[in-house]
Amino acid sequence: MTLPMEVPAAGLPARVRIHEVGPRDGLQNEKATVPTAVKAEFVRRLAEAGLTTVEATSFVHPRWVPQLADAEELFPQVAALPVDLPVLVPNERGLDRALALGARRVAVFASATESFAKANLNRTVDEALAMFAPVVARAKAAGVHVRGYLSMCFGDPWEGAVPLPQVVRVCRALLDLGCDELSLGDTIGVATPGHVTALIDALTAEGVPVDVLGVHFHDTYGQALANTLAALQRGVSTVDASAGGLGGCPYAKSATGNLATEDLVWMLRGLGIDTGVDLGRLVATSEWMAAHLGRPSPSRTVRALSHQEP
Amino acid sequence: MTLPMEVPAAGLPARVRIHEVGPRDGLQNEKATVPTAVKAEFVRRLAEAGLTTVEATSFVHPRWVPQLADAEELFPQVAALPVDLPVLVPNERGLDRALALGARRVAVFASATESFAKANLNRTVDEALAMFAPVVARAKAAGVHVRGYLSMCFGDPWEGAVPLPQVVRVCRALLDLGCDELSLGDTIGVATPGHVTALIDALTAEGVPVDVLGVHFHDTYGQALANTLAALQRGVSTVDASAGGLGGCPYAKSATGNLATEDLVWMLRGLGIDTGVDLGRLVATSEWMAAHLGRPSPSRTVRALSHQEP
Repeated sequence: MTLPMEVPAAGLPARVRIHEVGPRDGLQNEKATVPTAVKAEFVRRLAEAGLTTVEATSFVHPRWVPQLADAEELFPQVAALPVDLPVLVPNERGLDRALALGARRVAVFASATESFAKANLNRTVDEALAMFAPVVARAKAAGVHVRGYLSMCFGDPWEGAVPLPQVVRVCRALLDLGCDELSLGDTIGVATPGHVTALIDALTAEGVPVDVLGVHFHDTYGQALANTLAALQRGVSTVDASAGGLGGCPYAKSATGNLATEDLVWMLRGLGIDTGVDLGRLVATSEWMAAHLGRPSPSRTVRALSHQEP
Repeated sequence: MTLPMEVPAAGLPARVRIHEVGPRDGLQNEKATVPTAVKAEFVRRLAEAGLTTVEATSFVHPRWVPQLADAEELFPQVAALPVDLPVLVPNERGLDRALALGARRVAVFASATESFAKANLNRTVDEALAMFAPVVARAKAAGVHVRGYLSMCFGDPWEGAVPLPQVVRVCRALLDLGCDELSLGDTIGVATPGHVTALIDALTAEGVPVDVLGVHFHDTYGQALANTLAALQRGVSTVDASAGGLGGCPYAKSATGNLATEDLVWMLRGLGIDTGVDLGRLVATSEWMAAHLGRPSPSRTVRALSHQEP
């Protein structure tokens, strides 16, 4: 298999933790529901490929995300894997369900903008934070790690560019609730590297430690990996990605695909940054899932490597 | 049209010149030959979209690149456009043809590796340089600007990783022949940002001024824009790109697409770097060409913007 030459660059983290979101974020918009056994196999293969954090599913109400309505069936099938398996919990009811199954890591999903908070949660930003307060508190009391997702950190389809202080305020609020880490989401993929740098600088200037920050880029305009590089250059060492670029359909009206884990691993390997991921096994996993879904992976690395001789 | 928020980053060039290669590099591998009138319209539209350098065609022998066999017909149809129109000339015969039509900018195409020099030019690296010597000398004597392309600057399909000193040597040789600028090509798309930085540093350490350097990245593994960012951070201000990502077919066995001009313009606009390009007109041009070619553009920005309301 062709691999990049390893040439480290100055000022980057020695190790990056990839937060793999394919099974949850990647599959939650699939038109045809993926069978539970296939999801479990997907999580298992991702773990075997060396990913250490695999977001497994969401304990959202099945009415809102029917694709993940099998969370109660799926989670016990993967719970014994030797990796971190965070799950999304939208509210206390979701937390109850996750805790009942022994989940050790949960995530809440906030918005930096009022428009998206309204559209996604039918609440204001502060009402949503108030809803999360007991979720985070009870999770922490149970010794459970909590991630705070923050959507629309750069641009918003209704509001346009999102002012940095607005993002900083909600980040601060999530940390004050007790979140252990944040994931800064570019939900519509409009960010560019200078914007990424500016947001991270604005957060650290307010005393947010860089090691609680993760980044979650969408490749809608092809910017995800360049934005990731900018974040790494500012010391961020947690990067969200989705195996094969699953999530949103690149051929659909609104292309909002996640950064492909394989494209990220290629860059990190070239930079000499350790991730523990076996790229060949990961590509094979994405090919297997692409065959199941009946369409090619949008990941350029998957496409390139899957056409090569081993 | 959605646009990125402009957030400049420190240490980047104030202005970037995009060297648009779509009409030449993009179309030279098309199975079905594109009619000359369509090519001329393509060049004209690219110029109207604000691109200032449009590589128009190649005066290579028609036997080797039949897709560009109409260079003599095409060039006069676009020559009056108020933009730079470099053309590829493989040898003295090609230079004669280009000069006869009044070309003011030509490019030669060298290789950093022996394997590719043999495969592409049926010569050793030094034999190829010897072939280019009179081409460059005569072009310069005629007051014509000469670009030196250098292929396989990072990896080579036969030789693997390419040592930096080997690339530096050929760059130095091309400049010594009289080339005005160089284009560092990642022909198989394997470069990563640290490798890009290391090569540029190795060249400037040998006295090569950064302003004679351009970069030419392929998006085979999704790295092109991150690599471009790394090059900009080292002061490079000439970037090759292909409208719509034309060049190589992303669905074919060997995916070797060029960096899409639109994805580049999106990033540069977000960084507040002036290019003079009207992104809407450029996307419309790539959509028009995609319709002609009968397949969607692989550019993520083209896909995203072409699905939006104006």
